[in-house]
Amino acid sequence: MRYFRATVEYDGTDFYGFQIQPRQPTVQGVLEQVLQRLTGEPVRVLAAGRTDTGVHARGQVIAFRCPWRHSVAELHKALNALLPDSVAVRALAEAPAEFHPRYSARSREYRYRVYNTAVRSPLRHRYATHVPEPLDVAKMNAAAALIVGVHDFATFGDPTSGESTVREVYRSEWQRDGSEIVYIVEANGFLRRMVRTLVTAFLWVGQGRWTVADFQAAWAARDRRLAPPPAPPQGLYLWAVRYDDTIDADGETAQRISGKLSGEDGQ
Amino acid sequence: MRYFRATVEYDGTDFYGFQIQPRQPTVQGVLEQVLQRLTGEPVRVLAAGRTDTGVHARGQVIAFRCPWRHSVAELHKALNALLPDSVAVRALAEAPAEFHPRYSARSREYRYRVYNTAVRSPLRHRYATHVPEPLDVAKMNAAAALIVGVHDFATFGDPTSGESTVREVYRSEWQRDGSEIVYIVEANGFLRRMVRTLVTAFLWVGQGRWTVADFQAAWAARDRRLAPPPAPPQGLYLWAVRYDDTIDADGETAQRISGKLSGEDGQ
Repeated sequence: MRYFRATVEYDGTDFYGFQIQPRQPTVQGVLEQVLQRLTGEPVRVLAAGRTDTGVHARGQVIAFRCPWRHSVAELHKALNALLPDSVAVRALAEAPAEFHPRYSARSREYRYRVYNTAVRSPLRHRYATHVPEPLDVAKMNAAAALIVGVHDFATFGDPTSGESTVREVYRSEWQRDGSEIVYIVEANGFLRRMVRTLVTAFLWVGQGRWTVADFQAAWAARDRRLAPPPAPPQGLYLWAVRYDDTIDADGETAQRISGKLSGEDGQ
Repeated sequence: MRYFRATVEYDGTDFYGFQIQPRQPTVQGVLEQVLQRLTGEPVRVLAAGRTDTGVHARGQVIAFRCPWRHSVAELHKALNALLPDSVAVRALAEAPAEFHPRYSARSREYRYRVYNTAVRSPLRHRYATHVPEPLDVAKMNAAAALIVGVHDFATFGDPTSGESTVREVYRSEWQRDGSEIVYIVEANGFLRRMVRTLVTAFLWVGQGRWTVADFQAAWAARDRRLAPPPAPPQGLYLWAVRYDDTIDADGETAQRISGKLSGEDGQ
């Protein structure tokens, strides 16, 4: 048995999320099927984060144990040959036994793509969310900057039972690129639905539906009922998972693995 | 009865091409259904070009006659509210009776998107074609530049019976933008499958499978059997249709309509 880690990109449009489910296409299900076909044995895939239905990934990180007699490069090639067009392994390496894609992660980065045009665009509809109203990006960034640091996010996400609602956010900003506006957020972990709920909150600030003070008041109340609904899944990307000195999303191999930070539920 | 022209964008992934077909989803079928629902009468939609299964459009131009008592802006809004996510009307205006989206067109522009990376990308697979081998874009452009002007394209496309195989090409070039390489071609018209067949020919030149001289020899032979197979449809976009002084793709309203140039079959 050998132990591998991989960086995986997928188009979430046609999947019922990452996590395996009976009788529904999921990313984990497809990966495990292909690994079983290649190795002749059932293989269990661990992942850094469980993305929800319709959410994409550019840098999901997985790990799995399986028998394989050939080179890592050959396994990489074989996986991409058998995986559907909607899933690909961007990088593959052998991993040390103590590596866990979820518990070893030091941070996760998500991105959320919005496009801001009068008429919706069919060529973008699978990969970004349309907002026709003008958006005040400076105000959105004023609110987004507030969440950097160690804070309680009880208003904005759903903890699993007994889970703390405190997270450390390293980066939180909106960037405009033509008609596209992208939210970039990196933290040691996220509550379930936290990213998409924050996105709607910032969009409300950008549309003038909330002031920055309204955002702060809802946040300070630690009351889930004061949060807006989560933004639609097709704009969200699990962009990168970082381990120690390593950024995985661009396909680098992990050098050292250490640390044990908060887990990650579905976004 | 009023007469309208519209610029339409669509994601061709889930359609069996533009042209209406029994029991298959087509762009024309969807447009006619929605117009019938809005006006209570059957409406026939004319189009500038019939795109094949899986081909996209950023600037398809259509025209239709229907009863409508309200403003053009209200019809535009109602259409986009009822059309599926994969189709949208970018611009709508009343048209003079002599306007025909196909016969009045002075030129059509198609674009073909290729991305050139070692590993295929699930997030691009619906909208571009993956080419893993290195491409010599300078050589591709040397071949592409040759087709500008009035030429016989018998090798590269399928004429409908009796149709001439001569076309005038105004622009033909490859542009590189990071890992993406886009072919831009504008002509008074195209033979069926001509754009995708030329794309493969230029890619063969870029991969070293053909020299520029091989391309010229196949072209000069006027022999369809010497052409490579057409490139896959998901990279192709009907980008713009131009009428006199007017570019339609960016949503401008036609000012004057005139001219009568060659028709356009499926790409």
